Amino acid sequence: MVETARHQVRRVKERASYQREQVHAILDAGFLAHVGFAGSDGQPFVIPMMYARDGEDILLHGSIASRLMKSLAEGIAACVSVTHVDGLVLARSHFHHSANYRSVVCFGRAVVVDDAAQKVAALARFVDAILPGRAAESREADRNELAATLLLRFSIEDASAKVRQGEPKDDPADRGLPLWAGVVPLQQGYAAPIAASDCPLPPPASVRRLLAVGDGT
Amino acid sequence: MVETARHQVRRVKERASYQREQVHAILDAGFLAHVGFAGSDGQPFVIPMMYARDGEDILLHGSIASRLMKSLAEGIAACVSVTHVDGLVLARSHFHHSANYRSVVCFGRAVVVDDAAQKVAALARFVDAILPGRAAESREADRNELAATLLLRFSIEDASAKVRQGEPKDDPADRGLPLWAGVVPLQQGYAAPIAASDCPLPPPASVRRLLAVGDGT
Repeated sequence: MVETARHQVRRVKERASYQREQVHAILDAGFLAHVGFAGSDGQPFVIPMMYARDGEDILLHGSIASRLMKSLAEGIAACVSVTHVDGLVLARSHFHHSANYRSVVCFGRAVVVDDAAQKVAALARFVDAILPGRAAESREADRNELAATLLLRFSIEDASAKVRQGEPKDDPADRGLPLWAGVVPLQQGYAAPIAASDCPLPPPASVRRLLAVGDGT
Repeated sequence: MVETARHQVRRVKERASYQREQVHAILDAGFLAHVGFAGSDGQPFVIPMMYARDGEDILLHGSIASRLMKSLAEGIAACVSVTHVDGLVLARSHFHHSANYRSVVCFGRAVVVDDAAQKVAALARFVDAILPGRAAESREADRNELAATLLLRFSIEDASAKVRQGEPKDDPADRGLPLWAGVVPLQQGYAAPIAASDCPLPPPASVRRLLAVGDGT
């Protein structure tokens, strides 16, 4: 995956629309990002956070008590990375072993969203990013919850998508070796839902849809 | 997941051994890390990279042509994060929606490993980190491949593990609402292997073991 490192970062506006669409599609396929920034002493932090894309922005949220959220809220330079691993790439040589994946690295800064209505809507978006349709099945945030939530809008100033797919790239000289080579696809699968111990209700539509489409094999 | 941000980072040596074991177990459960560092201008980068744990160190590797690998190789402060998502936590309120997960955030610096034998061994470890037993089924690195590989040994100076598991934590006042709450477990599943187009052999033992234990549901 380190090939990512060699990619030049280009301005979103200068890139073809299919690249922008690729960035958006990779972001929309997940809900877990790794968010990086550096302290004033140069110490980097990389923190796992939930996110939801909103146009050219990425919404992030956390507790107002979080020291690291407060650092991000100051508008320092940040980096939001999202990676999906799609398969194990098993080559005939150690050197050509790899993974199939889709990744996005976004650069930008965050601003705090204070507006209560926008915060309510953003929290609903986070819920639907975890599970489409779930926001309508649960109670929206109240005033106290909004006050406890720090909501950030990270503007994507630059972004770089990187995708590897397909079979191993073995050296021609290795192809005659009596060694297997190929790809093992990796998928996310969902197991049967476990109701909360105080919940007597059957699973809702969002969960039933998830299990119908995402049974993992 | 932003609760991670509130965790104080403590010296590894000051922490109980079970915490160290927890850090190691979370690292050993994966092969994809998000590696962060800052440029001299404070710009943070978060790059997806494969890794393999070796004692208190994390091995990283990449191309000698990689600009970002070269930055890491200079021994600048870095952060290596690994996160496994184990389930969707669906609460009765938007606010209490979450995910079950295991994450580790490691702080330290990398040094370059130049020794050829150590590089050969490390590349084999990367292969076995992707798929146990696979290194013995494929050709080890030759001199040219070693010369093209930048191998880094990242020393874990500080580490913080964070785990969320179990059911949603709804407010007492919400428990009587006619809303479902619970957890949907999320698992990695492997699909049937796809042999390379020029490979007539049947899948090897490593792949057969993977499919026997990891069928995703």
